[in-house]
Amino acid sequence: MSEAPAIRFAVIGCADIARKVSRAIKLAPNATLHAIGSRSIDKARRFAAANGYPEGAKVYGSYEEVLDDPEVDAVYVPLPTSLHVRWAVLAAQKGKHVLLEKPVALNASQFDEIIEACESSGVQLMDGTMWMHHPRTNQMKDFLSDANRFGQLKSIQTCFTFAADPDFLENDIRAKPDLDALGSLGDEGWYCVRAILWAANFELPKTVIASRNPVFNKAGVIMACGASLHWEDGKVATFYCSFMANLAMDITAVGTKGTLHVHDFIIPYEEKEASFFASSETGFDDLVTRWASQPSKHTVNTDLPQEVLMVREFSRLVAEIKFKNSKPEKKWPTISRKTQLVLDAVKASIEKGFEPVQIQE
Amino acid sequence: MSEAPAIRFAVIGCADIARKVSRAIKLAPNATLHAIGSRSIDKARRFAAANGYPEGAKVYGSYEEVLDDPEVDAVYVPLPTSLHVRWAVLAAQKGKHVLLEKPVALNASQFDEIIEACESSGVQLMDGTMWMHHPRTNQMKDFLSDANRFGQLKSIQTCFTFAADPDFLENDIRAKPDLDALGSLGDEGWYCVRAILWAANFELPKTVIASRNPVFNKAGVIMACGASLHWEDGKVATFYCSFMANLAMDITAVGTKGTLHVHDFIIPYEEKEASFFASSETGFDDLVTRWASQPSKHTVNTDLPQEVLMVREFSRLVAEIKFKNSKPEKKWPTISRKTQLVLDAVKASIEKGFEPVQIQE
Repeated sequence: MSEAPAIRFAVIGCADIARKVSRAIKLAPNATLHAIGSRSIDKARRFAAANGYPEGAKVYGSYEEVLDDPEVDAVYVPLPTSLHVRWAVLAAQKGKHVLLEKPVALNASQFDEIIEACESSGVQLMDGTMWMHHPRTNQMKDFLSDANRFGQLKSIQTCFTFAADPDFLENDIRAKPDLDALGSLGDEGWYCVRAILWAANFELPKTVIASRNPVFNKAGVIMACGASLHWEDGKVATFYCSFMANLAMDITAVGTKGTLHVHDFIIPYEEKEASFFASSETGFDDLVTRWASQPSKHTVNTDLPQEVLMVREFSRLVAEIKFKNSKPEKKWPTISRKTQLVLDAVKASIEKGFEPVQIQE
Repeated sequence: MSEAPAIRFAVIGCADIARKVSRAIKLAPNATLHAIGSRSIDKARRFAAANGYPEGAKVYGSYEEVLDDPEVDAVYVPLPTSLHVRWAVLAAQKGKHVLLEKPVALNASQFDEIIEACESSGVQLMDGTMWMHHPRTNQMKDFLSDANRFGQLKSIQTCFTFAADPDFLENDIRAKPDLDALGSLGDEGWYCVRAILWAANFELPKTVIASRNPVFNKAGVIMACGASLHWEDGKVATFYCSFMANLAMDITAVGTKGTLHVHDFIIPYEEKEASFFASSETGFDDLVTRWASQPSKHTVNTDLPQEVLMVREFSRLVAEIKFKNSKPEKKWPTISRKTQLVLDAVKASIEKGFEPVQIQE
């Protein structure tokens, strides 16, 4: 990997999250920050200066110019969700590999346009769900996949909440119907649904039922909601997401033989170390006054933060395509699409008065 | 308290859980083990010997004889749920205070018969939900009640699961339609519902919706189920309970300003020490790469295990009535009844094909 030239990234849009991902591109051993584009060249310049872009980095006053730069291998797209289909499709048509912020689109059929454009151009598509790339995630998955330690998955409860200030609830991009119409469901529910699908080996649920009483802001965007997901084998998952409750990001997954707990699955407490709790065939003492054994804490270290590992993996796939004529890895757009399908079903259930919605691939 | 004579307990029925509660009565400073009754006097003798009943303890071959013993102040009733109404009512009529295992009845109207009998006789009624009496529970409640640290409750997710063996699923009392017809809902769901109500200051939800695909055994008893509970102010709670999944007993409660996590709320990992995790106004660092602060672990010590504290509190109330002409404490049967009402609603929702059920007090 170290022998191939680094993948040259451009970032289109100066969103807050682009600061974190610009740093990740800088830190990834197989990627470089090549360009930043904004609708305002001044804003782009300020962003480049504030985020340590290298001396020779290009600064563009439009997204089109970025996509027309022949030296750009890949673009990171942190734009509002309503703009994803336009810019991700154009990027793919211009032959750029696409690292796309989540939610990937306003609905799965929009995302299908992006997939089609990427497939037509033979470019890699990956969404920006960073925690998927943390080595802790693999270790948790090893546990969930272990027939002896975890057994068959039965239940998942997950939540992602954070307390936004009142200004956010009216004025943030994620609160605007023309920009991020999925609101909390798209921003936070995305992670919950991804966690559920991840635990369920990406088998889609059969039925999705939204919780009653979701909260909308004045503009009609979801500020808090939840849902239950049901599989034919009896597995059940529930999630809750909200912009109006203190920070929480939990997964509790219970299998026939094991239990998994994690409290910081999306953003680990610390950059270089993350933990989870696992227990297997747990019981009580004879009088049921105490546990015979306690869940064990597993701590996983990583030299590179998860967002850097995401950029590294994306760049590795791009390099395989660019230098070795490999095909794009379909796993990533496939799981993005499944996540989006479930979000669509939650939204449809809300719109239908919390009726069950069947998922069709 | 130490000046009043100890409250004399009788236990009717030699259930497994009666071993734990017999020990608790022995350890409680204001209670004594006075008698054990079983339908088989041999079984009662063996139980008394195996569980360290004092030399002078009475051993009876029927429940009636226990209730006719004028020296018995209080009875602990660990009988199958279907027998609660008969024996708890008779005990009350005989002037005995009643410590009643959960679920308290098969439905709230049955429990109302028990309440009425206890009120008519002026005896104390309390259910056997031990964790309510752990000092950790009070400390968690202090946190949940703190407007600055926790704020307004928004979401509760809870579960109670344990993996019973195949024999249990067919032959345990809790799997028999004529003995404990509520199955996992009554045995495990009881704790989940109690935790939810406890966190919600015992305000009943408006609507209860059972999860799809509950699991029944061959006899039609619930082996696994779940539900969501909805309040008019937008609060939402979900729970999952199962006899067919590894041990888990979690509460995740999220408020506008704080988050509570506990993994062993029903039976603490250890008898004399128990922990929970609390966080307030939690955020990220500037680049959203790590948490600005982590949840803090709060460890609470107790000299006496929670079941002893339960017996001590029950005996204290009985002594107040017996020696000081106090009235029974209504708080305990009131929260028992609310818990039962929610169980009834979950069961009704299952029977109605997972339709929403409105709760009426």
